[in-house]
Amino acid sequence: MDRFFEVQSLEKVLGYAGNFPVKKTESVPLDRAVFRVPAEDIVSAENVPGFRRATMDGYAVFSGSTFGASESSPAWLEVKGTIRMGETPDFELVPGTAAEISTGGMLPEGADCVVMVEHTELVDETSVEVYKSVAPLQNVIDANEDFAQGETVIEKGTVIRPQEAGLLAALGYTDVTVYNRCKVGIISTGDEIVPVEQKTEPGQIRDMNSYTLAGLISKTGNIPVLYGIVEDSHEDLYNTCRKALEETDMVLVSGGSSVGTRDFTIQAFESLENTEILVHGISISPGKPTILAGSGEKTLWGLPGQVTSAMVVFQIVVAPFLNRISGHGTYVQNGLKIRARLNRNVSSVHGRREFLRVKLTTQSDGVTAEPVLGKSGLIRTMVKADGLLEIGENEEGLKKGTLVDVIPI
Amino acid sequence: MDRFFEVQSLEKVLGYAGNFPVKKTESVPLDRAVFRVPAEDIVSAENVPGFRRATMDGYAVFSGSTFGASESSPAWLEVKGTIRMGETPDFELVPGTAAEISTGGMLPEGADCVVMVEHTELVDETSVEVYKSVAPLQNVIDANEDFAQGETVIEKGTVIRPQEAGLLAALGYTDVTVYNRCKVGIISTGDEIVPVEQKTEPGQIRDMNSYTLAGLISKTGNIPVLYGIVEDSHEDLYNTCRKALEETDMVLVSGGSSVGTRDFTIQAFESLENTEILVHGISISPGKPTILAGSGEKTLWGLPGQVTSAMVVFQIVVAPFLNRISGHGTYVQNGLKIRARLNRNVSSVHGRREFLRVKLTTQSDGVTAEPVLGKSGLIRTMVKADGLLEIGENEEGLKKGTLVDVIPI
Repeated sequence: MDRFFEVQSLEKVLGYAGNFPVKKTESVPLDRAVFRVPAEDIVSAENVPGFRRATMDGYAVFSGSTFGASESSPAWLEVKGTIRMGETPDFELVPGTAAEISTGGMLPEGADCVVMVEHTELVDETSVEVYKSVAPLQNVIDANEDFAQGETVIEKGTVIRPQEAGLLAALGYTDVTVYNRCKVGIISTGDEIVPVEQKTEPGQIRDMNSYTLAGLISKTGNIPVLYGIVEDSHEDLYNTCRKALEETDMVLVSGGSSVGTRDFTIQAFESLENTEILVHGISISPGKPTILAGSGEKTLWGLPGQVTSAMVVFQIVVAPFLNRISGHGTYVQNGLKIRARLNRNVSSVHGRREFLRVKLTTQSDGVTAEPVLGKSGLIRTMVKADGLLEIGENEEGLKKGTLVDVIPI
Repeated sequence: MDRFFEVQSLEKVLGYAGNFPVKKTESVPLDRAVFRVPAEDIVSAENVPGFRRATMDGYAVFSGSTFGASESSPAWLEVKGTIRMGETPDFELVPGTAAEISTGGMLPEGADCVVMVEHTELVDETSVEVYKSVAPLQNVIDANEDFAQGETVIEKGTVIRPQEAGLLAALGYTDVTVYNRCKVGIISTGDEIVPVEQKTEPGQIRDMNSYTLAGLISKTGNIPVLYGIVEDSHEDLYNTCRKALEETDMVLVSGGSSVGTRDFTIQAFESLENTEILVHGISISPGKPTILAGSGEKTLWGLPGQVTSAMVVFQIVVAPFLNRISGHGTYVQNGLKIRARLNRNVSSVHGRREFLRVKLTTQSDGVTAEPVLGKSGLIRTMVKADGLLEIGENEEGLKKGTLVDVIPI
């Protein structure tokens, strides 16, 4: 069966993500919210820390009481008491007085700064000498200095890192509304593919894609669901795709990179109710024969069977697509890249974006990127690699010494 | 209680990791092994792929049969049959013959390469014209070309990434022996600290460290165990530390950055049976008042109470220590760093390593690192930051425009 095979650009393919709804939301307890994506802006309901707080051990004072103080001419202050941690001081300070305070303690009314204990000398139980002048708000955090009431502190769509989890705790969020994680089904096809536990006969290889793709899906924060190996039969592939589509949000079918078996994937997708082929070919290398189909609110992908090509397509195409439909506000392409210096010339084919495997080595003068040698189908080349280096479609290669941005893998 | 407080270098502190045994091992199924650390070298028990395999669709041939072939003078070959995927061909090829083959198929005896289908034309059912000469082993992967039998393919102590999971699948590893993950207990101390679900009174703040530290522990691949908040009382802290030490591999006590409460942590650690204070002060900023104690095969840490300082100490000190005792072969300090250009001058105190929060922005000419302004105790500064920038102990600052390596956070 011959088909119209029109290669599309990576941008256009990623653009289809906009046709699919972002995942629904759920509420999770704060201790399970880290690395999830909030589905609403987080607004501070109160001032943080909420009171004027010491950041040093020492004495809470009115700053004016210390002006002009020095080693040779200390200020003499009357000690009115000690501030207990976690309590509101039950006294006020007037100029000329001080109160002993620990880091984190609440300043009494009348005090606007803390003089560090190192710059003081207790003369007797009720008087202290201060050897340094202190400015207003020095060594304190003011009541609304971290976050002010009503301020948006975390934008919807931003990943909750450990620091954001801490901020949510400070604001009293016991639960957070986040986007659901996507379930992603994985189907391996090919008559030559056998399960990992099986002894191989000549001509057979064990299923690698189920494990590489599952790992990559976990890395994006989503949930892999394995559907095993399907032989090259229309009916079996159709049935497994249908089951996976019912049970998950996205289905990856890897295999069938040869002309005949590629048709099996296309045919299975087209036989599914309400399913349309959106992409059949992307102008990237490796990964040109990639298929994308939409089925209602869900998507199906036909990935190359070659383990290394399937990994590259996942990283470059599927991962950003997944990020988009799982609520990441910014269109995270590949996260942070590593800037490195290429240590040899590389050539590329004009007219498509090529992704080269490179090994990174940290040298005294920066990071070096070395292209990994070996045929592209070898899993060895991925095991030796630390990242992918893109060569643009209008470039015919890159010269040794070029500074490049490497996508970590 | 006054104590001998001798600040130690970061290297010396990390060196203590060598005094503690690496975690025990367990066997996990392959689909749960990704991001774990293998506890033994993985050796290939067989050749991979194990047979001579096509990497293109086309015809398997003996290369010599194509030598000199061109568009104007094609080679004429007799087609002996079609190779079925996953099967050993039941015929041999002699020079002058060919067999139809798909990507991934097994070459028959006598064939040493594949001519791409694009360079052929089927004349009739049993003859094909070849328009290009093909070299030996072109468009094939040889039987032992990915990995040879007996070769060490993954070294003990290397994290299993998705590609290593694929390789393990190729080799038939249904289970992998990996180091156990560490359980890390978290205790927050301080009379001013209240649980996240509690309304705060002036003078109180909610417990942030339990959540930031739990997130950071998860990020290292280990397991956080929360023991909640302990008030500044020797008995309570001692009892909670003892319980946590029994139930986990490492205990983090955060809080008590003031002189008085720091002593509570030290005293609690010293009261534990068979426990010795190894470190009381590290020449880093923030994080100077950090405490490390050894208790048999386990460790206890006293971290600063200030949420941002505790995060930096975890990232710079505790994480590499944890990596070491959880079996990472290379002494992973902080993983890959991001090279960036500093966009303003920064100053530092001579004699200690300082870690500055920076925000990273990708510009057309590379990544820019901008120091995050604001008092160091504000969680806001961590939320705004993307990384930590180290200023060495012998430097008094860094000039605008300096290329720096940033630790992602």
